[in-house]
Amino acid sequence: MTAARISEHRLHRRVQFHETDAAGMVHFSWFYRYMEEAEHALWRAAGLSVTQVAAEVFFPRVSASFDFKNPLRFEDEFEIVIRITGFSERTIRYSCAMTRGETPIASGTLVAACVSVRPGQSLKAVPIPQAIRDRFAVAPVSGE
Amino acid sequence: MTAARISEHRLHRRVQFHETDAAGMVHFSWFYRYMEEAEHALWRAAGLSVTQVAAEVFFPRVSASFDFKNPLRFEDEFEIVIRITGFSERTIRYSCAMTRGETPIASGTLVAACVSVRPGQSLKAVPIPQAIRDRFAVAPVSGE
Amino acid sequence: MTAARISEHRLHRRVQFHETDAAGMVHFSWFYRYMEEAEHALWRAAGLSVTQVAAEVFFPRVSASFDFKNPLRFEDEFEIVIRITGFSERTIRYSCAMTRGETPIASGTLVAACVSVRPGQSLKAVPIPQAIRDRFAVAPVSGE
Amino acid sequence: MTAARISEHRLHRRVQFHETDAAGMVHFSWFYRYMEEAEHALWRAAGLSVTQVAAEVFFPRVSASFDFKNPLRFEDEFEIVIRITGFSERTIRYSCAMTRGETPIASGTLVAACVSVRPGQSLKAVPIPQAIRDRFAVAPVSGE
Repeated sequence: MTAARISEHRLHRRVQFHETDAAGMVHFSWFYRYMEEAEHALWRAAGLSVTQVAAEVFFPRVSASFDFKNPLRFEDEFEIVIRITGFSERTIRYSCAMTRGETPIASGTLVAACVSVRPGQSLKAVPIPQAIRDRFAVAPVSGE
Repeated sequence: MTAARISEHRLHRRVQFHETDAAGMVHFSWFYRYMEEAEHALWRAAGLSVTQVAAEVFFPRVSASFDFKNPLRFEDEFEIVIRITGFSERTIRYSCAMTRGETPIASGTLVAACVSVRPGQSLKAVPIPQAIRDRFAVAPVSGE
Repeated sequence: MTAARISEHRLHRRVQFHETDAAGMVHFSWFYRYMEEAEHALWRAAGLSVTQVAAEVFFPRVSASFDFKNPLRFEDEFEIVIRITGFSERTIRYSCAMTRGETPIASGTLVAACVSVRPGQSLKAVPIPQAIRDRFAVAPVSGE
Repeated sequence: MTAARISEHRLHRRVQFHETDAAGMVHFSWFYRYMEEAEHALWRAAGLSVTQVAAEVFFPRVSASFDFKNPLRFEDEFEIVIRITGFSERTIRYSCAMTRGETPIASGTLVAACVSVRPGQSLKAVPIPQAIRDRFAVAPVSGE
């Protein structure tokens, strides 16, 4: 029996005080961390421990972007939806949408490369192991 | 006499230990903070205190992106160059290049909107005050 | 009818990747953030929105300390227990214990002062409002 | 010839925007990072690269505390003075004082243990290598 492949994950999150800045809003650098928290939750939902995977390969970031639409403030509760939008031999692509109720907050993208763990050496992308690839599928295109 | 308009700024920075992650590299969320540190240093070089400006307007982020080329590690020294690449009536656009010696580290973009300070209300973009606009100029296109 | 006073709160938390450092452990600065997350959860459990309270008073830190016993690593799940250990007219004292299963991780203390919100002025401690004091009680001394 | 032993270090620092919180002040967790930045600068002043040392031993924190006296705000410039206050066979003790001009900001303590690098194993304190011990001296007691 094979477990279903995972292509998206939804995470509920509350803004913590230390994530806000003197403008009274979540500092924009935090959105990239929220996206990564959702990415790792997606991996756990796929039965993959990022920690165990990390013994052989890890997934440093190739690029990351966000469009910011509305601010988040302290104690706001919000949703993070992360979707797999593409695979190449050595990279995974994600999109990410954040909302607070009906209010759009931000939308982002993330590209990560599969890199073998070789301490002290420069990073070199390698093919994504089949055992990882088998757990994921590209999400159907949404109207979002 | 009028001081010269500012269109770019170079910042020297060293990686602090708390900026690294368990992969032994600077966590990618930090690049957005480095870019903002350079942006605020550019404003100070233009004779503008972000703090004083903030009594009337502030500049929340519309979008931000990075392409990551090589990692930074603890105690690495590196350069951040931020350039103004465009103005609209209500937004400023920047590009950002980070290097460690001859090694390219990352290149990014940032768009910020001019928003009036109205506590408790939603954010609304307003025209950039002339006193701010007068201090900056768009950087010439570089080959970088 | 009066709701029971709150004197402690237990929070379950998982270590996020961006909280780790190049030594492969959670950076020690994060323990103070974990303690504050638990403190704010305790306030919410007491029916107090820190955000609403903050219109009149807020609670800047007078002191904070931790003894670190064992490290936390990426994806570790752990418990944070925060207890109110004392009140003075203008301050609240907390103790905090973190554990991962049976393993002690850290124990900390936090003292916060009640300060009135007066933008642009220096901080001045004021008596804790009765409506806040009524919601809390000092925790019984534990053997911990 | 032997270089003079180092017992204290002074660091000049400016508050960055991302270090502030919605109360308009530097979040208290940042003081522990400022203290560590000064500690690592002290090590570099002693001719010790923390990165190179880290191939054999590293110095996880045993305890850390701060008393907070006055807030720091965005763009504030301030001084961090860190002093070595004691050595045991396996630990180093520091005190730390932060000031903004004549205004006291905070005073802290830090104890770090010398631990051998053994990936995947629990942390175990070992004697501080003589080559490290030879570079430092306990600071004379100050009136501060």
